[in-house]
Amino acid sequence: MNKITQTKNTLQGKTSIKDEFWGHYIRLVQDVVIPYQYEALHDRVPEAEPSHAIANFEIAAGRRTGEFKGWVFQDSDVAKWLEAVGYSLSIKRDLELERRADEVIELVGAAQQPDGYLDTYFIIKEPGKRWTNLQDCHELYCAGHFIEAAVAYYEATGKDKLLNIVRKLVDHIASVFGPEEGKLKGYDGHQEIELALVKLYRLTGEQKYLELSSFFIDQRGQEPNFLRKEWEDRGQVTHWSGKTDKTDLAYFQAHLPVREQSIAVGHSVRAVYMYTAMADLAALTGDAGLRQACERLWQNMTQKQMYITGGIGSTHHGEAFTFDYDLPNDTVYAETCASIGLIFFAKRMLELEPDAKYADVMERALYNNVLGSMAQDGKHYFYVNPLEVWPQACSCNPGKHHVKAERQGWFGCACCPPNVARLLTSLNQYIYTVHEDTLYTNLYIGNESVFTLGGQEVSVSQQSNYPWEGKVQLKVEPDAAAAFGIAVRIPSWSKGFELTVNGEAVDTAAELEQGYAVIRRVWNAGDVIGLNLPMQASRIYANPKLRADAGQTAIQRGPLVYCLEEADNGATLSSLSLNGAGAFSESFDASLLGGAVIVKTGGFRVDEASWNGELYGSTKAETKPVEITAIPYYLWGNRGSGEMKVWIRD
Amino acid sequence: MNKITQTKNTLQGKTSIKDEFWGHYIRLVQDVVIPYQYEALHDRVPEAEPSHAIANFEIAAGRRTGEFKGWVFQDSDVAKWLEAVGYSLSIKRDLELERRADEVIELVGAAQQPDGYLDTYFIIKEPGKRWTNLQDCHELYCAGHFIEAAVAYYEATGKDKLLNIVRKLVDHIASVFGPEEGKLKGYDGHQEIELALVKLYRLTGEQKYLELSSFFIDQRGQEPNFLRKEWEDRGQVTHWSGKTDKTDLAYFQAHLPVREQSIAVGHSVRAVYMYTAMADLAALTGDAGLRQACERLWQNMTQKQMYITGGIGSTHHGEAFTFDYDLPNDTVYAETCASIGLIFFAKRMLELEPDAKYADVMERALYNNVLGSMAQDGKHYFYVNPLEVWPQACSCNPGKHHVKAERQGWFGCACCPPNVARLLTSLNQYIYTVHEDTLYTNLYIGNESVFTLGGQEVSVSQQSNYPWEGKVQLKVEPDAAAAFGIAVRIPSWSKGFELTVNGEAVDTAAELEQGYAVIRRVWNAGDVIGLNLPMQASRIYANPKLRADAGQTAIQRGPLVYCLEEADNGATLSSLSLNGAGAFSESFDASLLGGAVIVKTGGFRVDEASWNGELYGSTKAETKPVEITAIPYYLWGNRGSGEMKVWIRD
Repeated sequence: MNKITQTKNTLQGKTSIKDEFWGHYIRLVQDVVIPYQYEALHDRVPEAEPSHAIANFEIAAGRRTGEFKGWVFQDSDVAKWLEAVGYSLSIKRDLELERRADEVIELVGAAQQPDGYLDTYFIIKEPGKRWTNLQDCHELYCAGHFIEAAVAYYEATGKDKLLNIVRKLVDHIASVFGPEEGKLKGYDGHQEIELALVKLYRLTGEQKYLELSSFFIDQRGQEPNFLRKEWEDRGQVTHWSGKTDKTDLAYFQAHLPVREQSIAVGHSVRAVYMYTAMADLAALTGDAGLRQACERLWQNMTQKQMYITGGIGSTHHGEAFTFDYDLPNDTVYAETCASIGLIFFAKRMLELEPDAKYADVMERALYNNVLGSMAQDGKHYFYVNPLEVWPQACSCNPGKHHVKAERQGWFGCACCPPNVARLLTSLNQYIYTVHEDTLYTNLYIGNESVFTLGGQEVSVSQQSNYPWEGKVQLKVEPDAAAAFGIAVRIPSWSKGFELTVNGEAVDTAAELEQGYAVIRRVWNAGDVIGLNLPMQASRIYANPKLRADAGQTAIQRGPLVYCLEEADNGATLSSLSLNGAGAFSESFDASLLGGAVIVKTGGFRVDEASWNGELYGSTKAETKPVEITAIPYYLWGNRGSGEMKVWIRD
Repeated sequence: MNKITQTKNTLQGKTSIKDEFWGHYIRLVQDVVIPYQYEALHDRVPEAEPSHAIANFEIAAGRRTGEFKGWVFQDSDVAKWLEAVGYSLSIKRDLELERRADEVIELVGAAQQPDGYLDTYFIIKEPGKRWTNLQDCHELYCAGHFIEAAVAYYEATGKDKLLNIVRKLVDHIASVFGPEEGKLKGYDGHQEIELALVKLYRLTGEQKYLELSSFFIDQRGQEPNFLRKEWEDRGQVTHWSGKTDKTDLAYFQAHLPVREQSIAVGHSVRAVYMYTAMADLAALTGDAGLRQACERLWQNMTQKQMYITGGIGSTHHGEAFTFDYDLPNDTVYAETCASIGLIFFAKRMLELEPDAKYADVMERALYNNVLGSMAQDGKHYFYVNPLEVWPQACSCNPGKHHVKAERQGWFGCACCPPNVARLLTSLNQYIYTVHEDTLYTNLYIGNESVFTLGGQEVSVSQQSNYPWEGKVQLKVEPDAAAAFGIAVRIPSWSKGFELTVNGEAVDTAAELEQGYAVIRRVWNAGDVIGLNLPMQASRIYANPKLRADAGQTAIQRGPLVYCLEEADNGATLSSLSLNGAGAFSESFDASLLGGAVIVKTGGFRVDEASWNGELYGSTKAETKPVEITAIPYYLWGNRGSGEMKVWIRD
């Protein structure tokens, strides 16, 4: 156990988002997603599979009879809903919603066992088998989600009922797991409680939570391997598929002690949840080994295993990473939850160190993979976020069955929609970080915030028309004149920028500090920072080692990756190629799915009429010039089933 | 049942291959494959998994005790070996080999049950369950292979012991299956017996065999569906994986009556074995509905679902076809056995109708997919024949685990190597067809043959240096001068040809007859036909609907498709592109894997050193001119593990 030191930079002040672009999506979560999910949890959505999640709690609480149904980790859906409710209430009080949440929390409390244990699967179905299959059964994972919910709900409402439930639960867990003689030296197959315990520590200041989180992280991958031993003790069976040959420890990131890991492997959501907790602990404990591991894993993941959309996970087999530079566009996984976890990890790295590279990836994942997962109605989602879709292949080639051409309704394993809900309702937490009296602006999302900087309370308001325009205004209002720094991120996509304070140019020749332009001065009330990041559609190329994108070009404008759709360009998108020298024209189309900048450029289309119809032939088909239309990736799949392609021949 | 009419064109005369190129491979089968397989069947190959196939027969015969081991269709390996031995003995008598085969046949006879039943799995393991799981258990499939073996062995040796075994077996089968009251209205999950019964009919002239074959073909896909009913009767379980949701009838080509099928679907080997029998029956019975179905299925398969290498089957899920124009190069299946079955089907279509398009596909599959499946040592094989390989992806991306970068030793499911063995030892049967006193030359493989044409016995000898040169000489020696036709196929790849008789040009302006140049005249002893098919490496393009090959070019020279290998061109083959206007230089390299024409051309390589190392960037990497070396596809993977690519950016 490393010495626990108090964190320097976790108090971020308070930020309220006031942003036209994101406001729409946050309201969608509040007005549609949270109520819809509430109904889904209560099995009252006719078109969705019954969740049975609330029913399980009612049975566990002895309020009704019946069997446990749903996934073994079904409880976590209730927790993720409560967490999103917490964030939502902190944005806008809603008494009816709060009453519903209180009722659910009361039910959760009623289901909790006298010793603090809480997991309806084992309470109802296998009461004698608690903590015997950590690998598959997710008891600690569910506990982690309840902890996150309790912290969010307490911070929003000041109500501590759920907080007390999870503290009692954690005390129980600490009586079962730990370094002491007779306790389990184990950890969950699905990381989550580790980052949740850090949140509980930050809220309560109680060191025991941090110690338990560190225990789980430190123990992972140690020999003798807990998951392997547990599997042997169970008779080499899994919860899912009976007898197995071997436990694939890399799938669980339990193949090596975490400090020895350098390559992102295994189930990608588990991986990024773990890295998030590692970065948290590195920040809180100053553990250099953990920090270095985080830096190595970040580097590997974002420089060798990440799609241009901020998606991670190249295969649906195990929803997992594969290996360096293996980023197929059509058999991709790029799960929504994995990109959300990547954003969690990026935020923790920004808290460790103000380096814009972390915010660049955060922005990339947020505006593309994550935002694109959600339909404009808030009720349909992509679980898998492909970069190339041929709808017929999704239905007729089993290797692409996991890829869908249109967003689906609530899932049997409904992890992604509640994860989107909790991210968007807590998006205010991702905009700024503070390091040593400097406020770092990581995301350009309109907001009003209050921080303590230079010994003063400072109001900061940010305005922009991002992601369509790169003009950002930051108004600074200290209670009294004070010296501190304000840093604005210069995104990696920007080809130049203009920076002013009160209309006067700031010397932009000054070197950027790890991707930020930092202004250190005495600030007076009403000072205004103007940042202009000119946005223009431009060509992006992939590392030549990235075989799937060879000879192809992507279009990006500001933070948004673009794509071609059949709706605009006709079928057989593979027949299109860009004119290598062609300019892009950009225009805002208010009629396109809520309004968006569309990009047009000259290109070529193979003329199918010039081909003789044979499967193979020696006379090349002719090409003819065409206009190619690209739309932001996040909007794809909203106009019926059709082909889509991010990388285009050039 | 359709009226049975005697076939007009099945007596092909006798052909002995005398060919340097194929002679090598045929000797490899005789000297290495057949002896090796004999040892494997006897569990005496230390490096291979025990086959247990002979042991199963010994147990079934009561000669030793033990359990049945291996696949439920393990018996077929013994049958395929005996079939290959038959063909081999017809090429060259070998007393020791014949003694071994007789011994095996004696054992097979000893295992046969008094009522004629023969399948060691059910004899040993589930004696009460005969004929209860036709879908999975392949009893008729194994019977089919024994029938093929018996015909081949009888034709080579005149020995009828195995023939009598299978006739007794077929009589037993006919007592179980058939249109009569009380018999099963079923068929095998894996087609094979249908084409085998046609061979038995051709040998014996006994109509009952043809009727049974027709019964199986006619019954397939009829409602109520036999396979579905059987599955329900079994309690909805399969032999392989317990309870299943549904029987996927298309996998078994049992989704529709065969005469209503138009699209190649399901397991590709089963499909082409069935189409082969359908074409046989169409030829023998004159059934127009069957023939039209064959033509539709041929057209769909070869014009919409075939790789340029003659591979079929786009997915390893079910080793199956997917849908039109879905031909991914890297997640491909293209099983060796499927291309062999495609050759079987092509031969039957050539017997139905002299159209060179069937021989073009036969040649394509033989010289590329099939020949490439075998290592130069005869002991290593590809089961899957990809068109693009990145070895690391084969081991680290589970979606490509079925693709191997190097040929493997004998397989657990050893279907491909014995299938190659029986095809190559019977290759003499694929060179010619005879229609109405015209001899059609389908393949350019050196041979000496005897036919009856124009009422005379005619010796024909063919010589060429194919596939390296397109100069072919056919010497015609009728016993006495006689009028008949000789047709030479003008391959679809040839851009022109010269044809002479006794050195004098034949009018090549005459229209080809369905792809053949036909010379009808009075032939005298010593007449010599000279055919010159100039071979030059050239570019081949794919139909624009074939998305996987968009913007890419393949190189073909004569019948051989070429590929790039890492061994010649370095790693990251995706970084290479052809110079669109570049010429090809060709040279015979005697040192390359037994000697081959290699093709070189100018191209470009992305210069990795000019890339800044980022995963994505806005500055395109530079390219530099390089020389690109292509080798025949069939030789790939013989120089260690490395990348390979057939389609190259242009």
